[in-house]
Amino acid sequence: MPIPLRVHLTPDTIDPRALAGCTAVVVDVLRASTTIIAALAAGAVHVVPCLEPEDALLAREAAALPCVLGGERRGVRIDGFDLGNSPREYTPDSVGGRILAFTTTNGTRALLRCAPATAVLVGCLTNRAAVCRAAHARARPVQIVCAGTDGALCLDDVIASGAIASALLATGDFDPGDDDATRLAIAAFNAAGPAPAALAAALRQGRGGRNLVAIGLAPDIDDCAAIDTSPIVPVFDAHDGVIRTGKDAA
Amino acid sequence: MPIPLRVHLTPDTIDPRALAGCTAVVVDVLRASTTIIAALAAGAVHVVPCLEPEDALLAREAAALPCVLGGERRGVRIDGFDLGNSPREYTPDSVGGRILAFTTTNGTRALLRCAPATAVLVGCLTNRAAVCRAAHARARPVQIVCAGTDGALCLDDVIASGAIASALLATGDFDPGDDDATRLAIAAFNAAGPAPAALAAALRQGRGGRNLVAIGLAPDIDDCAAIDTSPIVPVFDAHDGVIRTGKDAA
Repeated sequence: MPIPLRVHLTPDTIDPRALAGCTAVVVDVLRASTTIIAALAAGAVHVVPCLEPEDALLAREAAALPCVLGGERRGVRIDGFDLGNSPREYTPDSVGGRILAFTTTNGTRALLRCAPATAVLVGCLTNRAAVCRAAHARARPVQIVCAGTDGALCLDDVIASGAIASALLATGDFDPGDDDATRLAIAAFNAAGPAPAALAAALRQGRGGRNLVAIGLAPDIDDCAAIDTSPIVPVFDAHDGVIRTGKDAA
Repeated sequence: MPIPLRVHLTPDTIDPRALAGCTAVVVDVLRASTTIIAALAAGAVHVVPCLEPEDALLAREAAALPCVLGGERRGVRIDGFDLGNSPREYTPDSVGGRILAFTTTNGTRALLRCAPATAVLVGCLTNRAAVCRAAHARARPVQIVCAGTDGALCLDDVIASGAIASALLATGDFDPGDDDATRLAIAAFNAAGPAPAALAAALRQGRGGRNLVAIGLAPDIDDCAAIDTSPIVPVFDAHDGVIRTGKDAA
């Protein structure tokens, strides 16, 4: 029996009840997903996704360990926060051994919307192969959710979702059935090309990439296009509201 | 000043009020758009798009000229109707000099939803170049609307929308701005390839194409993939509820 696979081009098409029994993979490639992976790779103890900056301040007060504040509004670091939303800011020096309270405009919302899923994984291009192995191993229907921007779809998230969907289909165990959004995402990934430089060029053309170029953060795009370079699979635990690496959560 | 261009992957993302002052291009490539163009090319006087089969019967009663009933439910000809929804059924013999009362599952709904636009054109692959020239000449913002299937997106409509969007952008006079749906549709068209055989192969992979293959209507897909072969630009007049060729409506 093939395992159902579908892609949501924006979080709006999700029926949260239909997520029960499924593995959700939340994709905000520019940049929340990529940054969460970078933070965990750099040794952050865990990540607390927060809807608003005020929630991050509260999370820091409640933290049992040293806690770093990270995130963005309109793409730039929030006033009073330690770090912005560039993956390269997240190093062993800046977050190692610490909790990260993290808030971004779209990624956090998508993550919280997926809470009814049996498992919520964070995916992007850097951990594409790893998140596919993790989703495959769970052997449940997979719903890939593009975070988008303010409810509208983002080309970058669709391309990354296509990369993940393409790898899942390549296992031979998944079937999108009637879900043409999956086929469309794969077409977008195929049109972009699998090489990191080609992916970066494609990400630059979309709304999110154009915004990063405009605010002087173009190098982040190259970091986010580094496909299959990270083994980290962040898992969101909706019960305690925390994201840990797959190893910790297993 | 570049002219705004956007693509709606399903009719649901349309804000009908935002269509005022715009040219809408409604795309239901498999097969309502293609069939309407074939009917007008074959000499149908005009087409009356009807939501339900009963509405088509009423339209026939009200018609001042001989009237043919055409359309489908679940892809096949409606009981008691003269014609189904295959473009090749629409010939001078079957519809020449007659009115066509026409009802299909998704295309008609999308058309009626676009009624607030300043002009509503019917587009697909066969009239791609012609509908682009017509939309360009009107010099108003263009909103391309994929009819989809039961509210979900259809790969075939997205590919055809990308073909149209791509040709409009090539004029140098349009700009999608922040609309990544336009970029995504163009990526889907580019991934499919511009040759009719490649387009037909891509249309076959989507939900609509798979359904046509399943019900024995695969040859329709090749007819619908014949890009840039028709000069007909159907124009929907929301005031009298009728679709005429661009020449008649000018």
